[in-house]
Amino acid sequence: MNEKVKKQVEFILELDKLKHVERQNRILNESRRENTAEHSWHSIMMAIVFAEYSNEKVDLLKVIQMIAVHDIVEIYAGDTFFYDEKAYQDKYQREVDAIEKLTAILPNENGAEIKSLWFEFEHQKTDDSVFANAVDQIMPVLLNANSKNGLSWTENNITVSQVESKLSIIKKASPILWEILKDQIQLSIDKNLLS
Amino acid sequence: MNEKVKKQVEFILELDKLKHVERQNRILNESRRENTAEHSWHSIMMAIVFAEYSNEKVDLLKVIQMIAVHDIVEIYAGDTFFYDEKAYQDKYQREVDAIEKLTAILPNENGAEIKSLWFEFEHQKTDDSVFANAVDQIMPVLLNANSKNGLSWTENNITVSQVESKLSIIKKASPILWEILKDQIQLSIDKNLLS
Repeated sequence: MNEKVKKQVEFILELDKLKHVERQNRILNESRRENTAEHSWHSIMMAIVFAEYSNEKVDLLKVIQMIAVHDIVEIYAGDTFFYDEKAYQDKYQREVDAIEKLTAILPNENGAEIKSLWFEFEHQKTDDSVFANAVDQIMPVLLNANSKNGLSWTENNITVSQVESKLSIIKKASPILWEILKDQIQLSIDKNLLS
Repeated sequence: MNEKVKKQVEFILELDKLKHVERQNRILNESRRENTAEHSWHSIMMAIVFAEYSNEKVDLLKVIQMIAVHDIVEIYAGDTFFYDEKAYQDKYQREVDAIEKLTAILPNENGAEIKSLWFEFEHQKTDDSVFANAVDQIMPVLLNANSKNGLSWTENNITVSQVESKLSIIKKASPILWEILKDQIQLSIDKNLLS
């Protein structure tokens, strides 16, 4: 294998570590925490099925690539719980350091491509990134609302207003996704999963 | 939520079960079996990084969608070990039944799209599907060859000729992927992971 291919293989092997990163969220039957690799796949499936509902016409390839890539930083930076305001203070810097470290494994042009996808997702300035963020954020709501105990919410005393204010990008991305969110919040209130 | 959206949400929730499907393969450090959801994400990342090496120009969106979708049948049909010739005899029919059952949850047009992706991947007739299959098949080789014990091979006494003959689609898809495969097989022979 030439040096370029060797680096690409090394990067793919390093990504295996995302399977060890545990999220606050549980899988649907709450038998264990969800890991970030399987979450990323699930969000990709959500993007494929719900792409038709984006407010703005999106480049679905770009959306999926951003969803696939944006959480790889957790290999070094760990998962930051969505409602942990304190941990969010230095989240961006920790993750920038992580994306630099991870993409340094790759040949320059590949590293630049992955970094570009990561920053586009983070900055939420493009229609594609707004939709990708919305899909990624609604996934844990679906899992919590349809689980028995909504553990990542109930263990952390998450409130309806926290969910609604943190998830405002969903409204911007798609009225249908926003409607789903409202419906799932109501379901969660009925089940006493949100305070 | 209208009926169409309700069905789409139900489908996304059903997909959560793929996180319970265990493969013969272990994750890289061999601490546990890999589940199919996280494997699907890993293969998508491989497709993104290695797309440049396809023999034929591929539609990367189609490739990624096929990789994301093709294993969802395992929710009902289970994982069939790649080298289990006996289980392979009825694999196709079990999986066709599963894709029918799964996509029946969806509105017709979504179900048809997912089925179309699944059948295209399975039939390996298009350039996109050949490349998608190649990427999906080389992933477990990378994990085995770079693990300490190559458990899914060593536990099942897998031989070099089995790997080479079962993976011939990689040669068709890309000379570079084939070169990686040969390199990883040599590494595995050196480590006594393949008979």
